[in-house]
Amino acid sequence: MPQAILALNAGSSSIKFAAYRVGTGSELTLACKGSLDRHAREAKLIVKDAASTVLQEHTSESVDSSSALTTLLLGRIEPLLGDAELAAVGHRVVHGGPTFSAPVLVDSAVLQALDALTPLAPLHQPGCLDPIRSLISVRPRLLQVACFDTAFHHDLPPTYRRFPLPAEFEADGIRRYGFHGLSFEYIARSLDSVEARVVVAHLGSGSSLCAIRNGKSVNTTMSLTPLDGLMMATRSGAIDPGLVLYLQQTKNMSASEIEELLYHRSGLIGLSGISSDMRILLASDDLKAKEAIDQFCACVAEQIAAMATCMSGVDLLVFTGGIGENSPEIRKQICARLNWLGLRIDDEANMRGHNSISTRESRFAVRVIPTDEESVIAMQTRDIIDRANLEDPNRIAKNPA
Amino acid sequence: MPQAILALNAGSSSIKFAAYRVGTGSELTLACKGSLDRHAREAKLIVKDAASTVLQEHTSESVDSSSALTTLLLGRIEPLLGDAELAAVGHRVVHGGPTFSAPVLVDSAVLQALDALTPLAPLHQPGCLDPIRSLISVRPRLLQVACFDTAFHHDLPPTYRRFPLPAEFEADGIRRYGFHGLSFEYIARSLDSVEARVVVAHLGSGSSLCAIRNGKSVNTTMSLTPLDGLMMATRSGAIDPGLVLYLQQTKNMSASEIEELLYHRSGLIGLSGISSDMRILLASDDLKAKEAIDQFCACVAEQIAAMATCMSGVDLLVFTGGIGENSPEIRKQICARLNWLGLRIDDEANMRGHNSISTRESRFAVRVIPTDEESVIAMQTRDIIDRANLEDPNRIAKNPA
Repeated sequence: MPQAILALNAGSSSIKFAAYRVGTGSELTLACKGSLDRHAREAKLIVKDAASTVLQEHTSESVDSSSALTTLLLGRIEPLLGDAELAAVGHRVVHGGPTFSAPVLVDSAVLQALDALTPLAPLHQPGCLDPIRSLISVRPRLLQVACFDTAFHHDLPPTYRRFPLPAEFEADGIRRYGFHGLSFEYIARSLDSVEARVVVAHLGSGSSLCAIRNGKSVNTTMSLTPLDGLMMATRSGAIDPGLVLYLQQTKNMSASEIEELLYHRSGLIGLSGISSDMRILLASDDLKAKEAIDQFCACVAEQIAAMATCMSGVDLLVFTGGIGENSPEIRKQICARLNWLGLRIDDEANMRGHNSISTRESRFAVRVIPTDEESVIAMQTRDIIDRANLEDPNRIAKNPA
Repeated sequence: MPQAILALNAGSSSIKFAAYRVGTGSELTLACKGSLDRHAREAKLIVKDAASTVLQEHTSESVDSSSALTTLLLGRIEPLLGDAELAAVGHRVVHGGPTFSAPVLVDSAVLQALDALTPLAPLHQPGCLDPIRSLISVRPRLLQVACFDTAFHHDLPPTYRRFPLPAEFEADGIRRYGFHGLSFEYIARSLDSVEARVVVAHLGSGSSLCAIRNGKSVNTTMSLTPLDGLMMATRSGAIDPGLVLYLQQTKNMSASEIEELLYHRSGLIGLSGISSDMRILLASDDLKAKEAIDQFCACVAEQIAAMATCMSGVDLLVFTGGIGENSPEIRKQICARLNWLGLRIDDEANMRGHNSISTRESRFAVRVIPTDEESVIAMQTRDIIDRANLEDPNRIAKNPA
């Protein structure tokens, strides 16, 4: 019987998903994709076909558990898989810590280890593990694979892997990990090999840069946690560590209050006081909106220059993520700040969001590439179950958890 | 009677000083300079003339208070002033907070306000205020002027002044201040006006960069506290704010333990485990020394590129500070990482520490300029007492404290 793979990409209040049929040559064909948004006890499911045509819109009003959500999701997706049987579910997991440098089949020991990494991504890790846990309860025999946002950066060179701290901290797992790895891997896979030095700007509600040399991550702006690096929608990004100490020692804020401030009330929403949504800020006449946008674009442009420096130059700049893919104005402002490096964009191509937006005269190329984390999750999941089947042909029939 | 001004630049365990005679046209002539190092109860004073010839070396073995130190210092310096009378003492003060945007005559209210800024520079501010306090007690009639490391950056544009935090934090004085302002002001004063866009790399045991456009600071790497920005001798520089929270929430470290870690056990000493002294690391064969140097140079080069981006380019790069002035090897490594920007240095000129070390082909100029914070302190102090005399000719005879 043909097999299918479901890729789940769980965020704080929504899950993106994509289901693929696995062909005889192991190639993946998208069967359907969509999102499941949850607000209080109401869940809204949208399912689209491969051409992005909406197949179903469905609202459930009494979804009061993760298991109910998972059951709802499987119940809607499986009928769309035709004669294929769901063989495995791949999950985006934000933090793999020092141990998980590659995708892994989830069993109870793995789940426990992933749980223990929660303090490294307190606001992201639990949401990634929830669907794994509920699938174990509703479908105990289904294979599950954890695909890590940190894995693409696992082999950062020492200069960009180590914090400038005593060695015992690195031995204790305190290193620069980096995130958005599934997105960066998607971009890296989709590029020509001639583009040796690439800076990818993944700009969305979370934002980070990655310097990719010959397909490998050599530096990135997020580090131990997804709070570091660029200013974001509601996150501060890198900020004076002395500020954190000052808020505690002088302003009597607790660590959890500061965590709440820096993750949820900073960045675009903090500066503007208006919105964390770039579209709303771009549409606003308020000077505070303009200042927040200016600071965001300045921060991104300056750190692109820093990323290029760590590769002794750049051949290609890629914009991706919600803002990177959909906001020509933000791309334009960032690129204008890099004009001094010889970057020239074609305003028309940029407005239309063409794949290539740089001019012939530009010293390096600029492209807009929609990311597809779910396809990377599906590929990694397929490779893991292929390998598991090779090693133990009966493995696929066993209970993994 | 001719007047003299003494400039004091107090660090954690040493004071640098310089005494100047004020000429009839208010010009300053260096009378003597030197340093006073203190270890436990032993104090070592070195006094040099304007040509750096050592005039005196003196060790006192029972200096058990700041007042004793100050008395020792004045007792040695005043006889070298000839017929000039010491009219005022100018002090480097690390933090001026939101209020002090320019040098100020110190009275008891000012001193109290400066004391209140200690949490913003916990490891630096007390050492700056100590000599002021002891001079008030041993020479109550002497005018004292506070000259701020933050003042040069007071008018940073909003993009580089505001943290991406809610507005109430800025209203509460939580903004990017920047430091090393006396050094950056010295460099800015010594440049030709044609050099419109300058990046100054002040590299010493504390290190920071400043972007100077048309003589004014437009961005700098240190911010609220002197912990932010570049990796330093024993300070981490910018580091994931999530790391600070993680160390507290998961590793049960207290804020003061983290402060001690990030100020004293990080940076070059943390990474190398060998020394905080760049000269010792450069002389070492140990791989860890090389890695620490690599990370330092990478960090500086990348942030120079970021600083250049915020001015849409750079016309001149200046190296100053203990490392910047005296380490051709570090300058060479940093410049090599900026080669992709068209920077070319003349190896011979660099080795010899010439004023100009770039080649004719270089896209921007590179210079080595020894900084002189004491001369800026003296100039600022002279200007303040000139103004005070204009406003109230009797002021100079009054007790300021």
